[in-house]
Amino acid sequence: MSVVTLIGSGQMASALTFPLIENGHEVRLVGSPLDGEIIDRLRQDRYHINLKRTLHDGIRYYKIEDLNESLKDTDLIVCGVSSFGVDWFADEILPVLNEDIPVLSVTKGMLNEEDGSLVTYPEYWERKLPTGSKLGIYAIGGPCTARDLSDHDQSFVGFCGRNLEKLKWIRSLFETDYYVISLTEDVVGLESAVALKNGYALGTALAIGMAEKLGDDGVDHNNSEAALFQQSVKEMMELLKIVGGRPENIMFAAGDLNVTVAAGRSRTVGLLLGKG
Amino acid sequence: MSVVTLIGSGQMASALTFPLIENGHEVRLVGSPLDGEIIDRLRQDRYHINLKRTLHDGIRYYKIEDLNESLKDTDLIVCGVSSFGVDWFADEILPVLNEDIPVLSVTKGMLNEEDGSLVTYPEYWERKLPTGSKLGIYAIGGPCTARDLSDHDQSFVGFCGRNLEKLKWIRSLFETDYYVISLTEDVVGLESAVALKNGYALGTALAIGMAEKLGDDGVDHNNSEAALFQQSVKEMMELLKIVGGRPENIMFAAGDLNVTVAAGRSRTVGLLLGKG
Repeated sequence: MSVVTLIGSGQMASALTFPLIENGHEVRLVGSPLDGEIIDRLRQDRYHINLKRTLHDGIRYYKIEDLNESLKDTDLIVCGVSSFGVDWFADEILPVLNEDIPVLSVTKGMLNEEDGSLVTYPEYWERKLPTGSKLGIYAIGGPCTARDLSDHDQSFVGFCGRNLEKLKWIRSLFETDYYVISLTEDVVGLESAVALKNGYALGTALAIGMAEKLGDDGVDHNNSEAALFQQSVKEMMELLKIVGGRPENIMFAAGDLNVTVAAGRSRTVGLLLGKG
Repeated sequence: MSVVTLIGSGQMASALTFPLIENGHEVRLVGSPLDGEIIDRLRQDRYHINLKRTLHDGIRYYKIEDLNESLKDTDLIVCGVSSFGVDWFADEILPVLNEDIPVLSVTKGMLNEEDGSLVTYPEYWERKLPTGSKLGIYAIGGPCTARDLSDHDQSFVGFCGRNLEKLKWIRSLFETDYYVISLTEDVVGLESAVALKNGYALGTALAIGMAEKLGDDGVDHNNSEAALFQQSVKEMMELLKIVGGRPENIMFAAGDLNVTVAAGRSRTVGLLLGKG
């Protein structure tokens, strides 16, 4: 049994408590400064107001004031903040962490720098570490909605990081028969692949919105969705090459594009744009 | 204006008459020995009984007995047979063709040889040509249903073949604002990519069938579909490597997988299997 501390009690971090608890680990869920209401309700009856699921028994809940207590003897830290919390995590959390305890991030996205180049969150955080810090930062990518994971729907994701042995140990904490994890040392490739897909999901969903706008015109409009899907995969492969990611990561980009077009927020935006 | 003779009046060859006629070409549609009823009805009121669409005015219809007449002064031959007609086309049609007139095939699939290796249709036909024949065989791949093409839904396909200049000319006959064509000299890559996707579409559709079987269980089941989609892309990339296709052709495999999971026959089979 290991101890896992999840910092940020958003949907994905909270969904990860399902495999962790089922694998017999001690799970500590720490609300960020914005998560007060979530933690209050979880303490009351284990219901997560955003995830809309009841979490397993046995999770320990913390508010951010009790961060130090939540970190005591922990074996793994999960960064569960949304992309809006990336700087908070860098400024407030990273400096107080023990550099021997690895961090696994669920935050998807990339930051653009002033010169226009893109940087993954793990890289961004690594740059913010004190000189000489050995803190290992790992990340999760791939097509996985928090609700489906909570509902034990079959999910297939990627974990990435520079130390494959450590990655294997992290995987062992999470892997279940419904949560399948592929490992890669290509952080830029995986993180870029899953970040890229948001823009393309919006683009692909345009076709669905345009079809809905036309109403029941007797046309299936499968070709136009597939055309945008295909063009998206083409461009994502080219972009992956540009950022130095390995081409096989296109599987995560395509898989994540599939789920995001089916159900993500980017779908909603694209659909509305497509409808005009 | 060019003259295009389509041999086999199945759904895809017949759908291709839309861009061809709209681009101002003379179009000759020749029924295979199995297409008698289709040609009879087309001659009557231009309605295609399988495609379930009315074709444009001005197409000339032929039965196979009038093949020679249909080939007179033609500039391009389209092979429109289904995979069941591949040998018929090889044995009955290829030998009578003028080797200076290129052939463009719409037939998707691969043949397995006795030793278990797979061969694309263009390669198979090339082997059957008389020694020294210069006949150029080109092919269409990518996500495109015949009905959506007939309905002018945006479609994005690939044309492949060994002579890029000739391919550019063939594309010029077909390309319209709704039928967008990418060219590649990698015949094995494109043809393998679009053939592979059928098995994987069946596999991915399993998740949809399993979800339907469970009924309204409150679970979206997007993760499991995306997991199978992602695994499919992963395996198709590996298979592409094995057959010697270039990795960028994965875009056609992923795009075609998307449309086939949405609407193909393989979806139906996978769905039924998933339901048990």
